[in-house]
This record gives sequence, C-alpha cells and structure tokens, in this order.
Amino acid sequence: MSNELQPFFSPKGAALIGASSNAQKLSYGILENMGRYGFSGAIYPVNPKAHEILGHTCYPDISQVPDPVDLAVIVLPAPATPAVLQACGERGIKFVIIISGGFREVGGEGISLEAEVLRIADQYDMRIIGPNCVGTVGLHSGFNSTFINGLPDVGSIGFVSQSGAVCGGVVDYVIGKGVGFSVFASLGNEADITETDMIAYLADDPNTKVIAAYVEAINDGPRFIEVAKKVTRKKPIVILKSGRTQDGARSVSSHTGSMAGAHAAYQAAFKQSAVIEANTISELFDIAMVLGSGKLPKGNRVAILTNAGGPAALLADSLSVNGLTIPDLSEETRQTLRAGLVPSAQVQNPVDMLGGASPAEYKLAVSTVLQDPNVDIAIPVLVPQSLVSVEDVARNIIEAAGTSDKPVIAFLMGDHSIQQGRKILHDAGIPTYAYPERIGPALGALLRYAKRISTADESATAKIKANQTAAAAILKGKTSLGEADTRPLLKAYGIPVVHGAVATSAAQAAQMAQQFAGKLAMKIVSPHILHKSDVGGILLNIEGADAASQAYEQLIRQVSKAKPDARLEGVLIEQMARPGIEVIIGMQRDVQFGPLLMFGMGGIYVELLTDVSFRVAPLTRQDATEMIMETKAGKLLQGLRGAQPADIDAVVDTLLKLSQLALDFPQINEIEINPLSVAGQGAGVLALDGRVILS
Amino acid sequence: MSNELQPFFSPKGAALIGASSNAQKLSYGILENMGRYGFSGAIYPVNPKAHEILGHTCYPDISQVPDPVDLAVIVLPAPATPAVLQACGERGIKFVIIISGGFREVGGEGISLEAEVLRIADQYDMRIIGPNCVGTVGLHSGFNSTFINGLPDVGSIGFVSQSGAVCGGVVDYVIGKGVGFSVFASLGNEADITETDMIAYLADDPNTKVIAAYVEAINDGPRFIEVAKKVTRKKPIVILKSGRTQDGARSVSSHTGSMAGAHAAYQAAFKQSAVIEANTISELFDIAMVLGSGKLPKGNRVAILTNAGGPAALLADSLSVNGLTIPDLSEETRQTLRAGLVPSAQVQNPVDMLGGASPAEYKLAVSTVLQDPNVDIAIPVLVPQSLVSVEDVARNIIEAAGTSDKPVIAFLMGDHSIQQGRKILHDAGIPTYAYPERIGPALGALLRYAKRISTADESATAKIKANQTAAAAILKGKTSLGEADTRPLLKAYGIPVVHGAVATSAAQAAQMAQQFAGKLAMKIVSPHILHKSDVGGILLNIEGADAASQAYEQLIRQVSKAKPDARLEGVLIEQMARPGIEVIIGMQRDVQFGPLLMFGMGGIYVELLTDVSFRVAPLTRQDATEMIMETKAGKLLQGLRGAQPADIDAVVDTLLKLSQLALDFPQINEIEINPLSVAGQGAGVLALDGRVILS
Repeated sequence: MSNELQPFFSPKGAALIGASSNAQKLSYGILENMGRYGFSGAIYPVNPKAHEILGHTCYPDISQVPDPVDLAVIVLPAPATPAVLQACGERGIKFVIIISGGFREVGGEGISLEAEVLRIADQYDMRIIGPNCVGTVGLHSGFNSTFINGLPDVGSIGFVSQSGAVCGGVVDYVIGKGVGFSVFASLGNEADITETDMIAYLADDPNTKVIAAYVEAINDGPRFIEVAKKVTRKKPIVILKSGRTQDGARSVSSHTGSMAGAHAAYQAAFKQSAVIEANTISELFDIAMVLGSGKLPKGNRVAILTNAGGPAALLADSLSVNGLTIPDLSEETRQTLRAGLVPSAQVQNPVDMLGGASPAEYKLAVSTVLQDPNVDIAIPVLVPQSLVSVEDVARNIIEAAGTSDKPVIAFLMGDHSIQQGRKILHDAGIPTYAYPERIGPALGALLRYAKRISTADESATAKIKANQTAAAAILKGKTSLGEADTRPLLKAYGIPVVHGAVATSAAQAAQMAQQFAGKLAMKIVSPHILHKSDVGGILLNIEGADAASQAYEQLIRQVSKAKPDARLEGVLIEQMARPGIEVIIGMQRDVQFGPLLMFGMGGIYVELLTDVSFRVAPLTRQDATEMIMETKAGKLLQGLRGAQPADIDAVVDTLLKLSQLALDFPQINEIEINPLSVAGQGAGVLALDGRVILS
Repeated sequence: MSNELQPFFSPKGAALIGASSNAQKLSYGILENMGRYGFSGAIYPVNPKAHEILGHTCYPDISQVPDPVDLAVIVLPAPATPAVLQACGERGIKFVIIISGGFREVGGEGISLEAEVLRIADQYDMRIIGPNCVGTVGLHSGFNSTFINGLPDVGSIGFVSQSGAVCGGVVDYVIGKGVGFSVFASLGNEADITETDMIAYLADDPNTKVIAAYVEAINDGPRFIEVAKKVTRKKPIVILKSGRTQDGARSVSSHTGSMAGAHAAYQAAFKQSAVIEANTISELFDIAMVLGSGKLPKGNRVAILTNAGGPAALLADSLSVNGLTIPDLSEETRQTLRAGLVPSAQVQNPVDMLGGASPAEYKLAVSTVLQDPNVDIAIPVLVPQSLVSVEDVARNIIEAAGTSDKPVIAFLMGDHSIQQGRKILHDAGIPTYAYPERIGPALGALLRYAKRISTADESATAKIKANQTAAAAILKGKTSLGEADTRPLLKAYGIPVVHGAVATSAAQAAQMAQQFAGKLAMKIVSPHILHKSDVGGILLNIEGADAASQAYEQLIRQVSKAKPDARLEGVLIEQMARPGIEVIIGMQRDVQFGPLLMFGMGGIYVELLTDVSFRVAPLTRQDATEMIMETKAGKLLQGLRGAQPADIDAVVDTLLKLSQLALDFPQINEIEINPLSVAGQGAGVLALDGRVILS
C-alpha cells in the first residue's frame, strides 16, 4: 500500500482540467496555488480557449499534455466530468482529483454521474479523490491543488477531512501559529478513496508523524478498525467525529436500543483501535500537536514551573480533571531549586519562581524537575512580564527539554505578546498552548494513547464452543424471541440461564424439581390473575421433588379458592437465583460497525444512570474487561467498601459468547440479557431474563 | 454604595508614589500607562530624587502634591509602605492602590505589615486595593494604574481578578479582538476591598453591563451571596473559580495564603445567587460577551444559517450538549428562504446556503428566521470563501439582527481571514466566536441566567417551628451523636424518625408496641451475638402489645437455648419502615459559606454514583426543590417508568428543617441522615438512621 497515493501530494506533473484565466474563478485560484509554494513538478493548465495562464502553457485537452503527467485535477461541471475522466484514463493518468460538485450530494442525476465516474476509474485502474472536494496539499513538496488562501507551516501533522469547509477553516486557524502540517487531504464524497485509504497511506508517509482527521461517517467500519489497529501501533491517529449528538428518528425497541446512540459505535471502534477521539476542533489540533511531538510519558505525574500562581492553579485544575497528578518533588530537586531560584520562590510543585523569573531560572527549573524520578512531564508556565523576554525564555526551555526524554509542554498565557515565543517553541517541536484548559485534554489523550498501545492485545479471540445447529433451529423463521426461547439460545452458547418451565401437573412439577437443582420459586400461570401473591399464587424456597409436587397442589387449591373464575394454565417453576449483583448485557447491530456489545448496571438503574459501555464485535478478552471496568457497575463488581469481589471473569466470558453469537447469526438485530446476576468470584453468572429481536 | 469606589477608575488626580525615572522599573511603566490612554485627570509622580519624569512634574513627597488628588498608587518596598500610607491619610487621600508585594502572601513580617496597613486605612477612613496587585484600569476614562502592556477595546465587561497575572494574561488574549471592557481591577491580597465590594460597585457603574471575575477564594461567603443575589437581578455576573480540584486548590493556597473552600460550596453559592460559573478562561469571556450583549432569549431554539455543512454539524453538537435545540422552521420561513436563496440551498434547519452564499443571502436568511415563532436565537455561520467578503457579510448580519429583539450570535470559522469581520460584529454588539465548541457553553450559560433571574425566589425562608431547648439539651457537652441521640434531635426539629428503643422486659415491649404504631421489628441485644438471625434473634412484622410481649419472651427463650453463654441485654424494638426510596440528606459546615446542605441517592450508591447536590443555608423552598431535581435520585423520586411519584414535598421540608437546625446550632459540624426513606406522595419521609458530629 505504502506509496501508492503519493502522486496526490507530490506528482511529477499535474494537469488542471478546466483551468480558467478569469481571476474570479476557483480554478484560477487553484492554478495560482499550484505555482506558489515551491512545487518543482510540471504544471499544465488545460483549456481549449487559452494559450497560457499565469505563465503556464495551456493545452486544449488532456491528450495533448506532454510527459511527465501523473495527476489530473478536474474543475468542470459534473455532467462534463465523465468524458474528461475517460480521456485521462486513455492518456494513462492513474490519479485524479475531482474538485467539482454536483454528484451524489445533490441526489438525482448526480448519483448516476458518480456511478459513471467510478466505472471509468475502475476501467482504467485510476484512483480518485472526490468529487465535491477542496483538493490536496503536500507541504513538503509544495504541491497545492486547493483554492484555500494561505498555508500553515511545514511539519508533521497529516490532516484528512470529509469536509472541505473544515479543511479551509483549519488552515485559517493555524496560519502563522507555527503548527506544522505534512499534508492536507479533502476527500469530499469519497466515491473511491476513503478516510481509511488515506490513513493507510499516511501510516507509511515519512513526513507524517501523526494523523488527524475530521470525519462525518465511516462507511466500512470493520475495515476501518482493522487498518486503524495496525496504524496506531506505529503512528497515532486522532479523529474528530461530528454528528455526536444526532440521534435521528431511530426507533427505540429496547434498553440496548435506547442506550446506543449512533455515536456509541464510533467511540467503541476508536477505543478498540487505539484511535484518540477529539471532542472539538481545538482538541483535534491540541492533541495532534502533543502526539506529534514524539515523546511519550512514562506516567501521569506533572511538574509545573511558573512565574505566577493563578495561571498555575487553572492549569492544575485542567490536568487534574484529565487524569494527571501534581506530585511532590524529591528533596534533592527542592534543594537544587532552593539554591538556584530567588529566596522567596516556592519550591513545592507547582514551583512558583515569582513574577521576575528569568530565562536562566526557567532553564534551571525545567532541567532540574526533568531529572526527578517523581516527574514524568514538565510544564513551564509563563505569563508575559514587561521586563522578561518571552523569546529568551522559549530558547531556555528548549535547551532544558533537550536534556531529557520526558515530554515538555509549554503554557504561554496570552496571545499578543507570546506569538514569537510560541513560534520558537513549535519550531523546536515543543507543543505550546495559550490556554490552561487546553492542556489537560491534550495530555490526557497522550496518556491514553501511551497506555493503549502498550497494552493493546492483538491475540485473536478464542473461538467459543457453541451449538450453532441448535441455535439456528431456535432462530429459524422467528422475528423475535421471548424469555422462553431466549433461554435455550443462550444455553446453546454456553451462557448459564436460570432454569424455568411451566408444569401442568404435580407429577411434572416433581420431575422438573429433580431436573433443576436447588431451591425453586413456583408461581401460578393464569391470564386472569394480575397480582399472584394476593391470591396465594406464589410459593418460594421449594426444594426436592416431593415438596414441588405438594406445592403444585397447594397453589392450585389456594388460587382456585381465592379466584374460582380464573382459568389456571399451570405453574411456572424457576430456580431461585442466588443473591448476586444484577447487570445488563446486550447487543445491537450497528449499520457501519456490525454487532455492538453493551454492558452496564442492571435493573431500574440502566435508564436512570446510563452507566453503560460499548465495544464492537469481535471482542477480545481485553475489550470485554475494559468495557466492564469503565462503568460504575464494574466498580460494584470489584467489591465496594470491602465487599467480596464478584465473578468478573464470568461476565467477560458471557460478553465473548454474546459477541460470537452475534457474529454467527447476522439475522439477529438485538439481544438483551437483563438482568444477568453475577455471583462471587468463581461462582459464575446466571441470565435471569432475556430477549432477542431478529431482522 | 453606588459611586464610592469610582476614584479607583477615574480619579480627579492620581499620585504615583515610588515613581522611577529608570525605564527598567515597573513604576516607570505605570507612569507611562497613566499618561498613554487619554486620561484627563492630573498625574503626579512622587520621588524625592527626581524633578520630572516622562514630562510630569515630580514631587518629593505626597504632602507636597497639589490638588486635585484623590488617589494614591504606592509602588514601594513593603516596609516603607505604612509610613507613606500614613502620609496619604494626612494629605486627605481616601483611595489608595498598593501595588507592592511583601505582605501577607510572604508570611512572617509581611502579615504584621498588612495589619498595620489596615489599621492606618481605618484611622483615616481610606479604601485600599491590594497590596500585591497589578492595579486598575478605567477604559472609559483612560485611567490605567497597571504596568500591563497594551489594552483591550473600550466596552462593557467589568473584570475583577484576584490574580494580577490572570489580569495581564487576559489583556494579552483580547487585544485587537474587539472584545470591549469597562474596567479592570486586580485586587491582590484584598486586605480591604474584596471581590464582593467590587461587584457591588460595578453593579451601579453605568459603563458596565456584565461583571466577570477570576476568583481564588471568597472569604465572606454569606455576604457574597447576599450582594450577588441583588446584583444579578439587574446585571449578570460570571465567575471563574480556580482550585476546582484538589490539585488546583493546592496551587492556590501555596500562592495566596488564603484557604480555598470546598468547590461544592462555591458552586452552590453561585447557583443560589444566579451567578454563572465559567469552567475555563475562554468560557469566562465567551459567556461575558454573550451576557453583555443585552438580549435574553425566550427559549432554547436555535436557527443555524451556514455556508458549509461540516462546521454547522460541529456547532449543532456543541449546542445540543448544552441544552439547546435545532427546531424545524415554519413552512412560511421555508418558503421565504426557498424563494430568496439559490435553488440547491437546504432550507431545513440548519439552513445551508452553500459555499457561495452572498452577504445579501445572509441578511435575508437571518432576518427571515428571526421572524419565525419557532426560533429564539439565530446563528449565522461563515467559513471564509475566496470570493465572498467577510466584512460585507458581517455588516449584513448586523442589519438583519437590528430587526429583532432575539439574540444573534455569529460563528466565523478561522482566525487569519475573519479578524476584520469579527471586529465589525463586536463593535455592533454581536457576540462572535471562531470555534463551534465555544458557542454551546456560552449560550447554555445565557439560558441558565435567563431562567434563574426569571424564577429567582426572593421570599424569605419561613421560620421552622422547632423545639430548640430540647435540641440544645441533647447537644450539650457532646462531641458526636450516635443513632440513639440523633433521633430525638431530629424529632425536635420535626423530622419524622423511625421509632426504636430497647425493652428490657416483656411488659416494656408491650408498652412500646402501643407507643409505636404499626408493625415492628424486634432484635435481640447482646454484645456476644454477631449474627442475630443465626440464633433466632430476630422477629419481624410484630403487631400489637400482646404479640410484642410474646415475641419478647420467644426471643429470649430461643437465643438462650442457642447461645447459653451470651449475656442478653434486652430487645431492640423498631417500627418497620414502610417501603420507600432511600435517599441521603446531610449537612457539612463550610469555612467560607457556613452550613452546606447535601441531597443524593442513598445506600451504597452514595459513594459509587456521587449523585449528590449542594446548597448553602438558609435554603428557600426553591433551593431545596432544585437540589432534589438536579440529581438522579430526584428523577427516581419523580417516578421512573410510570412508577408512582414519591413525597418530594416531604423531602423539601426535611431539607429546610435541617438547614434551620444547622443555623441554630453553629457547634454542629456535620449531620447525616442515611437513609431517609421517602414514601409515596403525601405519605411523608422517615429517617432510618443518622449521626451528628460537633466541633
């Protein structure tokens, strides 16, 4: 896969089909951009009505364009595009960017035009970016096929966007801020090349250290997970997904259905593939910046070195809510700081060097705390002071940072006075932030990435032993399964279910009592009785065949007496559940990602607390364990306030079995086990109730 | 109170004591700033060694300074300050800013120096800002007593800060962005003038439309609440409080020496006084900007008008998570939009006018949706396009906004290309944001403010009837109360408690059964028996005197037989609690704010879910109701999934009674009722267990 898409960012020669000599046209702006940023390849405007535009010789059609030409950029009305694409194919061009809109996004005729584009691409073995996109920029080659005004600095963030406007807006944000990019790719309708293709390409691009993406929808979820899992082992990916809150008019058919918003599957997929999710545009770049700096922290302990208390307090708040800590410094560190800083400086963490702190003091403080074994990350904080040079402080921070492998992040409070200092730090690869609240989320993401790639479990999921034939027979011809049919289905996949059946005679009750071990609950079955206990219709703690037989007779007798008119259909006999913690386990099939497993607190608390977590099948043991541990139900299972821990392994097994069941039978849309009763360690789980909805 | 602090921002004449002619000194920078921004009052540098500095005549000491002089700014070493302050008092100066540090914040001698400053201020009836501060700026008068480089635009945000560095950083952020301020006040150690004094002053300042504050600690909590409650009725207050987390609090206390209270008390106090809390520096100004625009929305329905889909999707996410909705537009609105916009425009909400949207289209779209009865707020969104003038769009948005009382907020995506457009919008009073994620929190805060001031309940809390004498007797000489003593204490304040007492004879048991209505639980009391039920030591559902007498004998007999060696001390007789929802109610005395009431879900869930809310005593009924409703326990009480609602009124009463109890007895540090069992509507509450800790 490696270099196959490189001509999109660094072609030998690029033809611009539909180039205009009118400065008010987008294609004129594109031609300007192609020549403006040092691109050394050939540039060929194509326009039958012009001889030369912006100093470039113009060609009447693509067949006339000389070698070398390996990329065509098409800016023509949609209906004219297929014929031109065909001509590109005949000319032997393998890479095409279609900027033009008017395809699938407008519906109607546009849909068939896009299909035609794909057909031609297939015929000539061409790769297409777009249509309906803003183009590409290769910052290291200087190639620019967009009409965006201005460009950010050259650097190592590779940015992929499903929205051209977001691409343009992002460029506008970062111009002049020293945040460096390797490529920009606006993918438009993704008729051919998708975000996943581009991520796979950038994984091997030596100029790209971190991949950042703005995504509205991922259409091939399983392939995305497969590719992203591999890529994140060597290069971080950070994604901003919009539409996080659009619930749509999705019908709510169960707890699982109402809990799993459209976004839950994306979040699960990102977690499982070690992709870092950004919540906002700012976070996307804040996180990319720190992930791209190349230094991963060993832990979450931060030393803050500041020239003012207030901003340090705000920073500490931001770090603390994002899982970082401000540890005590070692006695040795404090001694060194005490000796080197002004006497009234505060040498606890945060280290307050006071308002007049000099560049040399910053250097001393940063390099000292970086040597402290209690510190994983150092953050120098500077509020601009009239008598201290921000630029000199920046240079001293860079020198100190060079003495250690630990990450150094700078917080320069302000905007007006810190621009030069920030540029100096960014050029040296030190992520620099102007707001304290933007540092916590970025470092929190860095920690999550470091943790995920160190613990990622690539082992294939062990195949679950299951009676598929039995399961298939139960499912056959059904549109849904109630409690009675769900029991044998779960049993076929080795999930322990509470035994229960309806006896219609005392003899049958006795037989069932022998079959189901332990104590039984026995309940009258009648369509005419709502409150069974009011008519003596429930007996508990029945044990043994004789007792069951007697209990059957007693129930019929009592209820007949209390409610002579009721039709009695028999007695429901169930194993009494051992006491356990009740959780919910479910599966809902997601359009993009397939089976989405859910775990959470059971009973009435499911809806009240929305304490649920999700992962996409197939689950690994680690996935299942993580989904339990990230909920409050998981904390309850671990044993609250000295309570004995519950059988978490058995819950993990159940999740794996449900994952397998969902993968084996694509016709199952939803499964819900609620509650699953979890007993003490080693004592297993028991599904008390469940249901299944098929497609 | 009104204009009493005005000379700090607009003096007739200001003396700068400690003025230096050395450009490397802070006081030189202050003198420059005093003369730089159009201040028309007199400026008098005071320095015995100079005749003139920066063109101002210099005076050897303050006694020599001519009239008019009503403000002194002192920049001298701390030990020299008291004598100079004394001289100011003798000269008749009533307003003094002490910039110098070296007072309480350094401890030791500094503490007595600050006490001396206060004594002198008192003697001469002077008001002091500082010491250890950055000074003040009155943007409308042009007066500037700080050494901060640069100034923001003149406008209507009054900013108060307990950190000079945060003041300086904020100025640095906003320079050139068109965000307008009325005053800056850095309060330093707040030896005399506190954040509350300054808020009270700004409430009457005609140039200030919104008060924004950065706060590390509020030392007089009750006075803050009293003042803020009044001020927010006419002018919004937004506060950023640092030390929200343990780590943040530690940074603050190491910085100023004032103890930061638990953040829960601050949050409660802010809610009760309709102060809007900002979570970050950005939010502080994002919220101030929209609160200062002067238009309050009638509801939460937002129309989005955009020239690009991606940014609108991100905006919709941000709005949705902050309680705003994107409603359908009326058919009439859609028809007008369809007629006025390009044919392929999307006239659903968000209205997508497509990339080429012109200034005239923005005007049409904004003014049209503002007339729609389904819309409360309009947000035009612009991603810069090469062929559309951002400035023209800005002017057209302003014209459209002028046609309606509904708020209009602009989202201009980018930085580089939108600066002029943003300035034009800000100058016209239209809050403008560059990031979608910053709009939701700002509008959410605007809605909260609109709601709080419309529902604020100023009625005094009704005095609770209580038996204070009985309560005093119970508390006398105690350091803590167990369950047995807590019961009568709660009863003295009219809180229903489960009856319970130890009987030492069958006759006494019979007597208690007559006294406690309903069913009883009876339990053996013995220091030698751990598991009562194992030895037949518990009987339930006992009703009536005879049954109680028999049960007493039975318990003694059974247990004596099972455990012949155990010493039996009697039988605990308790009313059986009716089934109810278990909640927790508590009180903890906060250093700054006094009694802090707590409500939340009871049982093991308190710790697991941390589903709790807080308010400061005295509570109003509305406070108590709100604290219930903002928790998940409150949702449970309201009746989940068709369940009958519980007696929320009785919970409100209990909170009010606990509030009264805590106010009546300052020696009580903590009270906890856990669980309080809440029965159905009208059926009341019952405290099942409780304890009290005294100081």
